[in-house]
Amino acid sequence: MSFRFTNRIQNTPKSFIREILKVTQDPSIISFAGGLPNPSLFPIEALQEAARETLATAGARALQYSTTEGHAELRAWIAARYERRGISVDPDQVLITTGSQQCLDLLGKLFIENGDEVILERPSYLGTIQAFTMFEPRFVTVDLEEDGPNLEQAEKLLATGRPKLFYAVPNFQNPSGLTYSRAKREALGALLRKYPETIFIEDDPYGELRFSGEHHKPLYAFTEGRSIMLGSFSKITVPGFRLGWMVAPPEIIRLAVKAKQAADLHSSTFNQFVIAEYLKRHSIDDHIAKITDRYGAQAKAMVAALEREAPAGVSFTRPEGGMFSWVTLPAGKGSCMDLFNLAIEQKVAFVPGMPFYTDGTGQDTLRLNFSNASEATIDEGITRLCRCMRDFLK
Amino acid sequence: MSFRFTNRIQNTPKSFIREILKVTQDPSIISFAGGLPNPSLFPIEALQEAARETLATAGARALQYSTTEGHAELRAWIAARYERRGISVDPDQVLITTGSQQCLDLLGKLFIENGDEVILERPSYLGTIQAFTMFEPRFVTVDLEEDGPNLEQAEKLLATGRPKLFYAVPNFQNPSGLTYSRAKREALGALLRKYPETIFIEDDPYGELRFSGEHHKPLYAFTEGRSIMLGSFSKITVPGFRLGWMVAPPEIIRLAVKAKQAADLHSSTFNQFVIAEYLKRHSIDDHIAKITDRYGAQAKAMVAALEREAPAGVSFTRPEGGMFSWVTLPAGKGSCMDLFNLAIEQKVAFVPGMPFYTDGTGQDTLRLNFSNASEATIDEGITRLCRCMRDFLK
Repeated sequence: MSFRFTNRIQNTPKSFIREILKVTQDPSIISFAGGLPNPSLFPIEALQEAARETLATAGARALQYSTTEGHAELRAWIAARYERRGISVDPDQVLITTGSQQCLDLLGKLFIENGDEVILERPSYLGTIQAFTMFEPRFVTVDLEEDGPNLEQAEKLLATGRPKLFYAVPNFQNPSGLTYSRAKREALGALLRKYPETIFIEDDPYGELRFSGEHHKPLYAFTEGRSIMLGSFSKITVPGFRLGWMVAPPEIIRLAVKAKQAADLHSSTFNQFVIAEYLKRHSIDDHIAKITDRYGAQAKAMVAALEREAPAGVSFTRPEGGMFSWVTLPAGKGSCMDLFNLAIEQKVAFVPGMPFYTDGTGQDTLRLNFSNASEATIDEGITRLCRCMRDFLK
Repeated sequence: MSFRFTNRIQNTPKSFIREILKVTQDPSIISFAGGLPNPSLFPIEALQEAARETLATAGARALQYSTTEGHAELRAWIAARYERRGISVDPDQVLITTGSQQCLDLLGKLFIENGDEVILERPSYLGTIQAFTMFEPRFVTVDLEEDGPNLEQAEKLLATGRPKLFYAVPNFQNPSGLTYSRAKREALGALLRKYPETIFIEDDPYGELRFSGEHHKPLYAFTEGRSIMLGSFSKITVPGFRLGWMVAPPEIIRLAVKAKQAADLHSSTFNQFVIAEYLKRHSIDDHIAKITDRYGAQAKAMVAALEREAPAGVSFTRPEGGMFSWVTLPAGKGSCMDLFNLAIEQKVAFVPGMPFYTDGTGQDTLRLNFSNASEATIDEGITRLCRCMRDFLK
């Protein structure tokens, strides 16, 4: 006898990426398929020290149940960090979450009724497609261009469908590696102010990881309190603590707290205390500089190898930060799934682009991760991959 | 301009308990309102050692992203623990969650469509009412008696409404402190086998905390694979790690993994490693014996004080484990909210029973927590509270 599952869970896509990761366990495969921070950069000793100090001086508090909103010290640190970027945030506007992934689940609960329109970038982050699908929205998309979203498409959608949410990753997007320009930010901000019924969600796990060019102001600065910022400790410290956050107007935080209570009561008290202690003792800017130095060198190696090896007609993004580059093949040559199979035979892996599209397209695209391999390995892997592309495009 | 929130979030009750906790911050108040494990029993030094060892020997793995299913070693430990209670569980049937609270959210996503019938005990755990309300079920209830649920009511509901879920806390229930007898378990098991469309959820955060009487087999043993067991490290180690688990048939685990991916990717890798290391180095049975010794003495003090001080007509449960006793006042004397206000004036706090009911009743009931105060404090607090009851019942 079978179980009576809901439509929502049956319609939610599996993480194709996690399926791929099983294939790429083989250590002889050069994998650009992951999305993992480079573990050689984890501040293990500093966290060791912070954990020891936390347990020695605040053990009972750090191991007990705590407030849903999160550790006051950590909320204050996050608010202050935004101040430095010219954004005024009150600590009460910060909710600590179990990774920034949890924010997507909570915001789905707060805003999406069955059939509500939600704008995504095209392509978009797979984890958001999964999280929002639970609440049965109607996805609509705006094409992502070199400098940000197509504004004509955006205005048309904002004007006609009363979308509940507009979800975007304006810095070093996953999967494309693209970043919104200053001009696009201003223009999009103006557009969002014109259609204040639609809440803009600015997901920014990679924003601090800029290795070239200038930081831009968050869209939050241009939207007059109708937007929500998401952030994460995963890429600037460690992902294994599962700590992220949401910054939103107080009315939204109040209901997000209610949703979070029902979801997991609160995020790990211990991990919040340890991170807060770590941040008190160490310069996060120094640590981020180490990460961006490394990722910058790795991105450079990837772009150089692609420039040297990529067959004619293949284009790719040149990220200024983050962890991904995005490759587009000439249209109509077949599915990247076939390229994937060729590549696995040659011991190199990537993520086919289709899962990042909600409209069944993306067959000509692939995502490459550069954060987790040395320059030499990247060079060798891209050389192999481009050889496969040549066979595939014949 | 206001926000366009969903019905589900607007209809979800706030945690009244968390509101009360704000009132009871005053250290001069004797609070029986909490539900906190006693932090003096936290194995802080042993966790210090386990954290140190984890970071020294497996730092990069323990701080990285990991599988949604959870740390293999921890899943195996949980499965083996059930074996000792005569229940055969494969580690693949175990999903590690962000506290057992998260299981309720995931199971809501898997099973509850708008309007689906869900059976709860009357009274029931508030966190479940909150979590399930997100998915807009129709709650129906069976009265909880001294030895378990009213079976006539249960059969009527099972036979007529095709309920999707039957949620229960068979050991030392929150809020009532009541436990299902062996006979009720067998009879309820037979009933559930007769109506296999309804999935039984057996939430058991307190089962290990038995300080008198004999352990009973889980309902799981009587339901032929149509039930789900939830468990938690919060009460047997520490709650601040936010680690719990679900045991379910493989088909359910597969979809619960998909729901969890979308909710928070996975639970804290670090905390899972630290708990696994702690469990390898220390006897959990010895630790649980310390907890039950303490809670047993505290429960005894509470029951003795109630027997001595409670006014005529007031009844209360005599728990054999867990953290709560449940008091019922003579009907029709007014709302426990008024008693609550009298009690706060006398510097003693409890949780009024109404939030544990989905039908607006419970005015004559209150929940008392005994895990977090000394015997002397409990004696003094119950004496004050019973004085207030006498005034209230006049």
